[in-house]
Formats: sequence, C-alpha cells, structure tokens
Amino acid sequence: MRQTFDESTDRSFGPRHVPLIRKAMADQGLDGFVAPHEDEHQNEYLPAANDRLAWATGFTGSAGAAVILKDRAAIFVDGRYTLQVRDQVDQATFEIRDLVEGGVPAYLESATARGQVIGYDPRLHSPDALDRLKAAVAKAGGELKPVSPNPLDTAWGQARPAQPTAPVVPHPLRYAGEESAAKRHRIGESLAARGADAAGLTSPASIAWLFNVRGGDVIRSPLPIAQAILGADGSARLFLDPAKVTPELPVWLGNEVRLETPADLPAALSELAGKQVLVDPSQSSSWYFEALRAAGTSVQRAEDPCVLPRACKNAVEIAGTQRAHIRDGAALTRFLHWVATEGQINPPDEIEAVSRLEGFREETGALKDLSFDTIAGAAANGAIVHYRPTTRLNKRTEAGSLLLVDSGAQYLDGTTDVTRTVAIGEPSAEMCERFTLVLKGHLALARVRFPAGTTGSALDALARMALWAHGLDYDHGTGHGVGSYLGVHEGPHRIAKAPNSVALRPGMIVSNEPGYYKEGAYGIRIETLQFVTGPATLEGGERPMLGFETLTLAPIDRRLVVKALMTSEEVCQLDAYHARVLATVGPLVPAEVSVWLTEVCAPI
Amino acid sequence: MRQTFDESTDRSFGPRHVPLIRKAMADQGLDGFVAPHEDEHQNEYLPAANDRLAWATGFTGSAGAAVILKDRAAIFVDGRYTLQVRDQVDQATFEIRDLVEGGVPAYLESATARGQVIGYDPRLHSPDALDRLKAAVAKAGGELKPVSPNPLDTAWGQARPAQPTAPVVPHPLRYAGEESAAKRHRIGESLAARGADAAGLTSPASIAWLFNVRGGDVIRSPLPIAQAILGADGSARLFLDPAKVTPELPVWLGNEVRLETPADLPAALSELAGKQVLVDPSQSSSWYFEALRAAGTSVQRAEDPCVLPRACKNAVEIAGTQRAHIRDGAALTRFLHWVATEGQINPPDEIEAVSRLEGFREETGALKDLSFDTIAGAAANGAIVHYRPTTRLNKRTEAGSLLLVDSGAQYLDGTTDVTRTVAIGEPSAEMCERFTLVLKGHLALARVRFPAGTTGSALDALARMALWAHGLDYDHGTGHGVGSYLGVHEGPHRIAKAPNSVALRPGMIVSNEPGYYKEGAYGIRIETLQFVTGPATLEGGERPMLGFETLTLAPIDRRLVVKALMTSEEVCQLDAYHARVLATVGPLVPAEVSVWLTEVCAPI
Repeated sequence: MRQTFDESTDRSFGPRHVPLIRKAMADQGLDGFVAPHEDEHQNEYLPAANDRLAWATGFTGSAGAAVILKDRAAIFVDGRYTLQVRDQVDQATFEIRDLVEGGVPAYLESATARGQVIGYDPRLHSPDALDRLKAAVAKAGGELKPVSPNPLDTAWGQARPAQPTAPVVPHPLRYAGEESAAKRHRIGESLAARGADAAGLTSPASIAWLFNVRGGDVIRSPLPIAQAILGADGSARLFLDPAKVTPELPVWLGNEVRLETPADLPAALSELAGKQVLVDPSQSSSWYFEALRAAGTSVQRAEDPCVLPRACKNAVEIAGTQRAHIRDGAALTRFLHWVATEGQINPPDEIEAVSRLEGFREETGALKDLSFDTIAGAAANGAIVHYRPTTRLNKRTEAGSLLLVDSGAQYLDGTTDVTRTVAIGEPSAEMCERFTLVLKGHLALARVRFPAGTTGSALDALARMALWAHGLDYDHGTGHGVGSYLGVHEGPHRIAKAPNSVALRPGMIVSNEPGYYKEGAYGIRIETLQFVTGPATLEGGERPMLGFETLTLAPIDRRLVVKALMTSEEVCQLDAYHARVLATVGPLVPAEVSVWLTEVCAPI
Repeated sequence: MRQTFDESTDRSFGPRHVPLIRKAMADQGLDGFVAPHEDEHQNEYLPAANDRLAWATGFTGSAGAAVILKDRAAIFVDGRYTLQVRDQVDQATFEIRDLVEGGVPAYLESATARGQVIGYDPRLHSPDALDRLKAAVAKAGGELKPVSPNPLDTAWGQARPAQPTAPVVPHPLRYAGEESAAKRHRIGESLAARGADAAGLTSPASIAWLFNVRGGDVIRSPLPIAQAILGADGSARLFLDPAKVTPELPVWLGNEVRLETPADLPAALSELAGKQVLVDPSQSSSWYFEALRAAGTSVQRAEDPCVLPRACKNAVEIAGTQRAHIRDGAALTRFLHWVATEGQINPPDEIEAVSRLEGFREETGALKDLSFDTIAGAAANGAIVHYRPTTRLNKRTEAGSLLLVDSGAQYLDGTTDVTRTVAIGEPSAEMCERFTLVLKGHLALARVRFPAGTTGSALDALARMALWAHGLDYDHGTGHGVGSYLGVHEGPHRIAKAPNSVALRPGMIVSNEPGYYKEGAYGIRIETLQFVTGPATLEGGERPMLGFETLTLAPIDRRLVVKALMTSEEVCQLDAYHARVLATVGPLVPAEVSVWLTEVCAPI
C-alpha cells in the first residue's frame, strides 16, 4: 500500500517541541520566531524534512503559519481548517487565529513589545509577505531579524528527517512532446523580448517541465527539488544535489545545460551582477531577492515564464493524458463495480475502499504513485471537504448513505483526479435531488462553448446555478489546473468565484468538480478532468469557439439521478457520456464488470 | 420634440478649428495640446460648452482624446467608434489611432521632439492618466505643462456656448426616500471610520443624490454641475453658481449645508490644510489633487463614498421606479401596438418611429426628459450598436426586416431604459433562431439566484452561453447600473466580461441586455431593467439567495420566438412575464391596444 492511515502528528507536538524552539530562540537572542507552512521551494506538498509547521504545532494542513514568542504562541489557519486545527493542536500551547482576517501581521503588531527581536528565516518567506511582517513589527517598536540557521531547525536537530535525494530521471519525449532545448529557446526568446537577460527558476514543477526530467523528492508529485537559471539565449544552469544525479542525466540535459550543486547557487547569483533577471515573487524567497539585490542585479518581478506554457499541454501530452485516463477509468470502474456488488452486501469501511481502489490501480502495472491521498468519505465524513481517512477516523459505510471517493493517480503519460459519489443501499429522495443539482452544474460546465479570452471566473457560475436556484452552494472552487505527470494542482488558470485574470487556452487541463455537503450527514461531489479544445467553427456560427473535452471515463451513479429535474439536453449529454465510457472502458475490464458497466451506462 | 435629428458637427470642424487652436498654442508658446473628451466633471454626458473634442475634431462619441501638435494631429477612439470616427472626422487633419492599444502616451512619446512644450489643462485630466502622459513626454525629452486658460477654449472664444445655469430644485422625500441629513451623517460616519475628516465630491450625480436635489445642466440627466465638501460630522459646503439657486433651495438644504459659489472652492480647499481628505481619482481632476496638495492636505485616494450607497436603492426609490416602469411600459406598449398595426401597413422610417414613441411618452404627462436619445435601427442600422438616427442616416423599415428600438425616459420617480426588437413583415428563420438565442440568455440572467458576494462579472456568461453554443456573441456589456431619476448609466456594479469586483447588492438596478448583430443586415437586442432582491430563503434551501425582479413591462415579440429551441422552464418564464405585462399594463392602455396586448401576451 502506498497510502497510509496513520497520523503523522498528535496534540503532544506543541507542548513537546515549543520549549525546545524557545530554548534555541534564547540561545540566538530572539524574543520570537515566525514559522510559515511554506518551505524553501514555496511548493504545495512539502518533504517531511521541511514540514516545520507540523513538527512545531501538530497541524498538517496545506497552508498556515505559527508565531512562537517567549511566553505565548499562536497558530494561523484559514476557514478550511478550523475543525482540523482544533483536532490536531494543543490549545494550551497555541492560541488559534484566522490566517486571513488580521492574520500574522496584526498579531505581531499587538504581541511584540518595544525593543523585542523577532527572528525569521528569509528562505521561507516571499518578499511581499515579508514586507507586511516587517511593517507590523516595526509599528510595535520591535525588529524583525533574519536568522540562519533558524531556531526551529536547531531545535528539531537530529530528529529531523534527512532532505530527500530521490534520483532525477529523464522524462522521455514520447511523454513530454517537446525537446527541452526547444522549450528553453522558446522561453529564452520571451525573456529577451521583455529585455531580461535571464530568469531565476525556483519552482520544482517549472524545472521538471523545462528540462524534461522528473524526481521524487515530494510525496504524490514526481518533483525534483532543484534550482535553475535560464538565460535569454536558451542555455541554463541547473543546481541539483549530486546524490540525485542519475548516470544518464548529464547526457539527457545536453551541452547547453550546466549541472551544478546547490552550493554553487549563491556564486551563480553573484555572477548576474548588472543583468536584468526575471524572478517570480510568488515562487521565490526573500533570501533569493536579497541575494540578487546584493549582487547588483536588476530584478524584474513577473510570473515564472514556464507557468503558462506548461499549462498549455501539447498534442503529445494530451494524447498521453487521454491514455492515462482510459487506463485509470478502467481501474476506477472495477472499483465502482466492487462497491456496487460486494460493497452492497458487506458495506466496506473507508480504509477498505481506499485499499481496494489502490489495488485496482496497482494492477494496471503503470502506477507511479497516487496523485494525492484518496479521500473516501462515508456518510458524514463525505461532508468534510479536506477529509483523509485514518485508523482513528475510519467509518464503515451503511445502507441508505453515500460514499464519496476522490482519488487520482500518477502515470508516466498523465496525472488523473476524479471524484465519484455512489449510493450504498437505497438513497433518500433529498440525496437524489441534490445529486441531480450537482450533476446539472457539472454538465453545464462540461458542454459550454466560449470565445478566446474567457476566464475560469466567468464560467464558475455555470456549475453553481442549479444549486443556487434551490438555495444551495458549495464552499470550494469548481476547477483547478492539472499537470502532465506533475502536480495535480497547477496554475495559472482556475475556475472559481474568486477573480482570476488568466484566460482559458487550448490544451489547458482543468477539473470540473461541483459538490454539495450536508454537514453531519453526507457529501456529494462529481469530478472529471477536461481539457480546453478549439478554436472551432460551429455549424452556422460566426466566431470560433473554445470548449472542453472530457478526459475522465467512469460511470456516474444513475441511481442518484432524478430524470424529471433534467432537461432533454442534459439527458442526452449524460447518455452520450455513458455511451463513451462503455465503448472505451468496457473492453478493458473483466467480463462481469463489463456486463455491469453495460447496465449502469444504459440511457436514463 | 425633445430629440433632434441634426448632426451637431461635420467633417469641416477639424480643418476649420485646428488652425485656430494652433494659433492660440503659438501665442502661449506651446508646441502641442492634449484635448481629452472628459470635461471638468468627468461625467459621461457633457454640456455643449464643454464638448471640446467635438468642436476640435467633429467626433461626438462618448470617449476619446485628441493631440494637436504644430504640424500634425491625431484623434484616439476605442473599438466601438472606429466606423463613426471615419464618418465624422477629416483624416487630412487628424490621423486616427486606437485609444487603448498604445494610445495617447505612446503617440506623445514618438511625436514629441526634444525640448518641446506640450500643454494640458489640469482640470480635464485625472491624476493617474496625467502621470502616464507626463512620463511619455519626459521620455521624449519634452515637457508637459499645465496651462490656464487652455488654447482650445481660447480658440473657441465667442463661439463657445455659455455654461449651463439650469435651476437646482429639491428632489422630494417621496421620491428620494431618505433625508439628505440622514445620508450626510451616514456617509460622514463612514469617513470618520476610515480616519478621514472630509470628502471632496466632484461628481454631479453624487451631489444630486447626497443633497436630494436635481438640476438640468446636462442633457438627458437631471444633473446639477456643482462641487461639494462633506465633513465627517455630516455638515457640508456646496459650491453652486448663484444663477442656479432657486428660492426654495437654501431652506431645503438646511442649516448643516453652507451654500457657496464655485469661486469659493479654492479657498475652501486651502482650509483643509492638515486634514485627511478622501478624493476619488476617477472622478476628480489633477487640478483638484494639486490644490489639496498645495494646501498641505493629506489625501486618501478612494472611491467616492456616495457611489455604493446611491446604487443600493431604498424601498421608496424601488417603489418609485416600479411606478415609472408601469407608466413607461404603457407608453411603450402603445408604440409597439402602433408598429404592429399601422407600421405593418405603412412601414415607418426611423425618425417617425422615434417621434411616435416620444409622443406616447409625452402623453403620460409625467415625462421630464428622455434618458438618452432613442436608438431606432431599421435593418442594417440595427447592427450599429451606438446608432442614433439623423436626417442623413434615416432609413425606412421594410417587410422582412427587424426594427431595434432602445429608449428610455426620465420621470421624477424613476429612470427607464428598455430595448425591444420587432419584426416588420415576415422575419427569416435565421432572425427567429438568433432572436431566440438572445432571449434564452436574457431569461437565464433574469431568473438566476445567487449568494451575497456574487459580482456581475460572474453572471455575464449566463446571458451569452446560448449564443456561444452556436458560435455567436456580442461585443458589449450585458448590464449597467441605472439611477433613480439620475444617470441611465451608473456604477459601481456592472454585468460584463471585464472583471468587476463589486458584488451585486439588494436594491441595485441593472440592465439585462444581451444582443446579436449581423453587420449590414440586422440587429437584435432584448433589454429590461431589473433590480436585485433578497436575501430570501428558498423552499428546501439552506442559504439565503439574492435574485432579480424585472422592472420593465412590455411584450417581447412572440413572432420571433422559436419554441422548439426553448426549455419548458424558459417557456414558463416567458409566459409568466407576458401574463404580468398584460395584467399590469393592460388596464392602462386604450381598448384596442389592450385587445392586441392580450393576443401578444398569450402563452407561446
């Protein structure tokens, strides 16, 4: 099993670790220390060695921060994590505060005394966030001071896991679809066009994409932790721990890429003196900006130049993800068949469901990793959007309830992410009605056509309007970008209520995942991945339109669909999707599954 | 007749007036002058005395700018006006350029020679726009110099119309719904809450709303040109040309409002030395900011504090606009009956249509003004979004064509704006299909429910998705705010593709006007006004939802509706709307119109 069901922290972490941090603070003459969730690479998933917030507090969410002062401490989380933080963090050690309202700067301003020195690690903060912290401490008459090493790392000491050193391997052209040299020269030209001599790249995903390599330093995403400098002439310097360099790597990277060690980075930044260098302030740390400034470099603050090209998948990547989704759809179909047959007789618990699904994916022989820990939420657990089953929380499904399963896989040819919600036993009329409203939104967002220039923000309401009409909604985004054997969450596009100025472009992969959650009762989510197609001229139309093509292939539980609530267009769309699932996945599953699939893919 | 069909300018304006401006420039030692469309009040509609761009160039559009140099000149317009500018402006005098792409700064940078002095009138530019112009001229080695009077006004001289002096009259509480004192204290408190001592108000619409007065200085909007300073204590100073002060005005304004003349404004601004003053950079000129800076005032740049409260109509204003729309709906219904009967026998030309409609509105006895010049576009003229019939362009309707009529009225109790598109003779199948697609979008935006916090940008796609699905779209926004016996275009909310961060709030009036335009053939637009309702708890729902209630009451041409393209929900919605039109307007129109209305409001 790849997925585990242990909890990596407990509520004793704060009481046990904060005194150690305070001792290290005192040794460095500090009155406080700011510990963000972000590590040196501003990445969504952290290696265990860099999950400082979890070690200090016990909190394992994907965003947050802590401030540890001599005689008090606070943890800051956003609205998604208000329940989880209470469950994981000792409140005698940490006061719980809202990350967004007021947040760390307001706390620092009120809690810092005149003359106090608060430490921070400049490698862990973006320059913009740091400016706000500095202003707050200054307002209180204190000083925010860069420290290296930081007191948390000192306190962690020998107990801290080693930095990962997973081998970095070539990602072949049959998956990547474009030579690294072509990518480097293309991006290099875009740098030259804006008057930049180079770009400093610190995002592992950008480095993986640009050099056509993959690593294994972070769980669930094949990312190499590395740094790079790309020149406007297409040449590059890649800074990589020698322990990760596989024998074939230097040849794969070619002559234009100089392979160096992380220890060489500071000197390399100094060599950029007098140059114009593009750096992304959302990806690179204050330390990085400070090093460039000290070198006499002129910094252009702009989005990482790999982000948009990486998001627009080429034809080879699209063909790869289509293959991956067919393979994954067959595994998921076997799982759904198991739930619909054995699972109805002996309702499984969540861990059994997760294990069984992982087994079917493993049997494809192509599974490199899960793309995230499977969420299997039975009944009330399905209503917890960020739920992950553990031995402590594990729940058995029972008749008359819903099981929500959100899962995904990493294959060499593509990354998947899919949610299906299925009925165990006889669902209630309310469950069916609400499932149908979610489905109507899902179908509206799948079939929409739109002109170039349209953003995900402009389409978000299509997925919600059926729920809105019944006084219902869901408190998460509708769609996120997905990588090509890379991160399952990837920018720059998004479908959400929050404004996003990035237009959807052909080749972008995006999830379509409206939901409905009844607290304490059940959760519904229907998620497929789809990619942006077009521009196409429609019959009788005047303007070329983009659209979506669905990648995910797995049946939607027809027992939960109320046909009377659907328009004839929606019925046709669902039937056509199921016909496609049957035709594509049917031949790939065992005979008994195929027979079942034929039934559940019949027109409604 | 209120509406005229003359053209106020012609192509000779440029050749005749530019030499006069160049002479005045030379007398002031200037090498150039920048003439924006905006006047001293940054208002959409200008008094004739301030329409400098039209006098200098002949161009009468609602946005643009000109740069006049010693030996060359250019006019800048946006994409809406590319046809009109070619029609109105002499291209031997003015080079035509795009206002958005490059625009005035890029032109100034390339056309200014080292050492040249370009004049500008600081009362005509917002500070942000001016900064860009200054940077561009400085880059070319020139100087941008404030001048007063400006050479255009000098050249215009005696020929320039006088500044308007329409009387300023009380707007009674039975229409305004809230005492001026209450508004002033409410806004004053919001100023105090943000640490401001006062706000400088320069928008005529804000002044009209805040003091519950109306004027007549600008055509089609009952606006008083005036300035004001509102204190955080709710007291105010109102600067108004004494010629406009009606005998009842001082009593109406009360003790807390000091009535002064425009000549008193500079001294009043000086008295704000040392104070925190809020000013809106999109409403107030560089001159205004400069005067406050010179006085030693600390300026807070923020949105005019009257804008949002003015947009959220109170119950009295909503009741008033409902009355106005019933009255206006009856007049429009009489017009539509006339087109559907006499108009089919003797198809009218555009000017006859405009005149007849104005006549029906005049017969209500309540008409204060049109809210804008009626657009009546027959056949191909209907495809020109900013069309206004003139004797030169006037076109006769003919069988087998469409007539698009976009019009509105100013009544004391409300402002209307409505578009109906009707068939003359037998419409083609294509016309009917595309009308139905526009109607589907219109209905989707009318029936949507949405949670608090939703912006107009998030809803825009609902009005377009049916067109998009057929490869069609329209190149204008879907909805604009509307005032209460004030401007027919009013912020801060909007329904459009362009991002807008203002959430729709209860009481906001907004138009719903999707369209389709086939160049050279016909135009379709269906527009009603609707106001934001709620929050309401829906049956079985969990979260309160806002929604829209339609204000406009006039039949939609059923001959253009293809029922087969509509869902049953859409059919019910259209039938219910028509039933409401019949029940509300039917009793108010002559018997023969009522009989006709019963027919055209029957279920489809």
